[in-house]
Amino acid sequence: MSVSTLEGYHGEILRRLKIANAKIGDIIKITTNSGEVFEGALFPRSEYGNPDHIVLKLRNGYNIGIHYEKTETIQVVGEGQKPHFTKPPPPPKSAGLPRVAIISTGGTIASRVDYRTGAVQPALTAEDLASVVPELSSIALVEADILFSELSENVTPSQWKTLAEEIAKKIRTGIAGVVVSQGTDTMHYTSAALSFALQRLPVPVLLVGAQRSSDRPSSDAASNLTGAIALAAKADLGAVGVAMHQNLSDRYIVAHRGTRVRKCHTSRRDAFKSINSEPLAKYDLQTGQIAYSEDHPKRSMGHDLIVKPEFDQHATLLKFYPGFNPEIIDAAVKAGERGIVLEGTGLGHVSKYSYDSLRSAIKSDVPVFMTSQTIWGRVDMNVYVTGRDLLNIGVVPLEDMIPETALVKLMWVLGHNRSIDKIRQAMLDPIAGEITSRTSIMEEA
Amino acid sequence: MSVSTLEGYHGEILRRLKIANAKIGDIIKITTNSGEVFEGALFPRSEYGNPDHIVLKLRNGYNIGIHYEKTETIQVVGEGQKPHFTKPPPPPKSAGLPRVAIISTGGTIASRVDYRTGAVQPALTAEDLASVVPELSSIALVEADILFSELSENVTPSQWKTLAEEIAKKIRTGIAGVVVSQGTDTMHYTSAALSFALQRLPVPVLLVGAQRSSDRPSSDAASNLTGAIALAAKADLGAVGVAMHQNLSDRYIVAHRGTRVRKCHTSRRDAFKSINSEPLAKYDLQTGQIAYSEDHPKRSMGHDLIVKPEFDQHATLLKFYPGFNPEIIDAAVKAGERGIVLEGTGLGHVSKYSYDSLRSAIKSDVPVFMTSQTIWGRVDMNVYVTGRDLLNIGVVPLEDMIPETALVKLMWVLGHNRSIDKIRQAMLDPIAGEITSRTSIMEEA
Repeated sequence: MSVSTLEGYHGEILRRLKIANAKIGDIIKITTNSGEVFEGALFPRSEYGNPDHIVLKLRNGYNIGIHYEKTETIQVVGEGQKPHFTKPPPPPKSAGLPRVAIISTGGTIASRVDYRTGAVQPALTAEDLASVVPELSSIALVEADILFSELSENVTPSQWKTLAEEIAKKIRTGIAGVVVSQGTDTMHYTSAALSFALQRLPVPVLLVGAQRSSDRPSSDAASNLTGAIALAAKADLGAVGVAMHQNLSDRYIVAHRGTRVRKCHTSRRDAFKSINSEPLAKYDLQTGQIAYSEDHPKRSMGHDLIVKPEFDQHATLLKFYPGFNPEIIDAAVKAGERGIVLEGTGLGHVSKYSYDSLRSAIKSDVPVFMTSQTIWGRVDMNVYVTGRDLLNIGVVPLEDMIPETALVKLMWVLGHNRSIDKIRQAMLDPIAGEITSRTSIMEEA
Repeated sequence: MSVSTLEGYHGEILRRLKIANAKIGDIIKITTNSGEVFEGALFPRSEYGNPDHIVLKLRNGYNIGIHYEKTETIQVVGEGQKPHFTKPPPPPKSAGLPRVAIISTGGTIASRVDYRTGAVQPALTAEDLASVVPELSSIALVEADILFSELSENVTPSQWKTLAEEIAKKIRTGIAGVVVSQGTDTMHYTSAALSFALQRLPVPVLLVGAQRSSDRPSSDAASNLTGAIALAAKADLGAVGVAMHQNLSDRYIVAHRGTRVRKCHTSRRDAFKSINSEPLAKYDLQTGQIAYSEDHPKRSMGHDLIVKPEFDQHATLLKFYPGFNPEIIDAAVKAGERGIVLEGTGLGHVSKYSYDSLRSAIKSDVPVFMTSQTIWGRVDMNVYVTGRDLLNIGVVPLEDMIPETALVKLMWVLGHNRSIDKIRQAMLDPIAGEITSRTSIMEEA
């Protein structure tokens, strides 16, 4: 990005900024006509931002957009801060430290912000990381690579395959653990995908991200990264997990099981929650101690890693609601989808108005599976008549599997099977803790 | 349903039951070949149950299905319990009590189970209710009606209209409050619908249901009903709410705001949760005291009830995920849907692969709105480039509105407006606490 003196600003705003003799990067002070005063670095206006806003980066790390009509005075009070990074410490004598691979796929966890242009750049060489999070050098010998650089909402099932294969390569070099940085939006879909694609894992594979980018004072980037790398280096864990804040304090980083985790808040640091289960492990950033859940899969160098990285994205997740138009089911079948996961209501229901479309989908060899939009709990289609109707039609209940994991598993199952019977069966076979059967002989009345 | 002596049983099971001289309703004792003993009333086999199971209703209220191959002996040990209900107490002298209307739309909250046939029948005359929950007669003078009898997953937007009009009628008789019983699956969709259809409410309108049917010892039916009727009779509340257990104890029934509530567990008694808000009121079943949230709308007989009961169900809720097929968007438009609510990821994103279909939907006068599948939190499409792209395309962010409420509101807005601009604007106008704007001038960087 080339930086002109007043990049992105036009018309009246440009005129006012020129009068003030302001340049991008300068520290400017704006007094609004309601008397508020804002001081910060002048940012270039983004192509997608409000064209009537002057954008400042405040000292507290927040950006603010101020409508030009609200500005009473604009004043340059200082030169722009030049981008600077602390000089990395000399490479540590790390002979005894475990080797951890960190693979970047995008996201802002390990990013440096150029304060002058506002551009976020990945900080992913070992030196960059050491400069951003100096304590890492005492935990592990980090080998960092950029695999791709994608906003997480744009990550595709074929990129899950690329990632799984890259992780497998790293593991085969005898690495102690792997950390994958990704944007948080779809991190739980990726963790589910890797949980199915990489079986009999000898070491931990931990997805990590940040809910607040690393240029903000409230950023969780450094603490998440430290926890993830420590767990990858030392935890007695042979599984895929998502390593993020346990709560709003900065003390514990938990590793959620890759198939049991979900982003449950748009912006909180503890947005990720284990559903119907406990996190596999918990790292104490203060003491360095690790606690485990009872049933966590253990690290074993003897494990023979199995890589099954195919995904067929012709699987559809449909959430049911009152007034749901069953033509959407017909359309999915017509569009060539090979399987459907329903997010039903309650114990696993959709309305009787969808029965015909479901019958016709199943008749067309498009298997249909049931999960619940309640998120927590377990579907049980033997309790009410609607559940029994749906079982009769051939809808397969997925017990306590969460909808997102069910969808990813279906894509993975479709990637490795053609036979409808095998697809149905494979969805119910537990692979990575994603499904547990009801143990009791009791039926709920 | 006609009850034959061994209804629904066939083949080998029928043969064994005949040898034992067992009849439906008899108390029978089954010893399994692993030595377990089960004693209970023999149930008719449901058409949809496992054909190899003998079904018993145990004394603890649970049903159990036992595979006939596991039965070692079958023995009749007693006659079937005849269905019986306690005789209702004499109608109370209730001159001073507030009048509460209870409108039944289905569900099992106030049901009686015929133990001989297993059939669940509504218990909805004032006498029935008094027999099921005798304490009601000291709280309110209950006027009970059955409006329709529908499993909640089959309730349609046109039934929301019927229900809203019926509630309005009751309110105009000067009633102290209205309780609506419904199955829990879609209760939160109904509560959102009523919140938009009934404005300036002078009295509380409370949806109530049961997570466990009233024939089970663990049933929450009586406590929910008691709490709902007490709140309807006495609470200083002029709003639509959902009255259910606050937690797993049987002490508190909370009234969640109708537009802020969601079923978050398949089966727990405290499945309903207020999202991004606090419940409006809390009823203490032990003391009869009511506590309120700070911002609860108050009861006022002076209010002039506004009834706007139209819903157009041509609105679609689409949940985004990696690999999402944008043809589903095209198909929704083609199927005549008039508006789309997206459940995006994180702060309100979908992948760039959906941009073309979204552009084309909006160009075809099908407005598109954004909510987040994280459920908790607030969409903010100014933070990342994807959000800005989507704003640019014309997608309208719905702040902190939950997806289910957004869908119901869109159906309601479509029911009352033709102009696209008005539809867009109406979605953002707060009606019943469903949306709050970000108050701060800060943008998150």
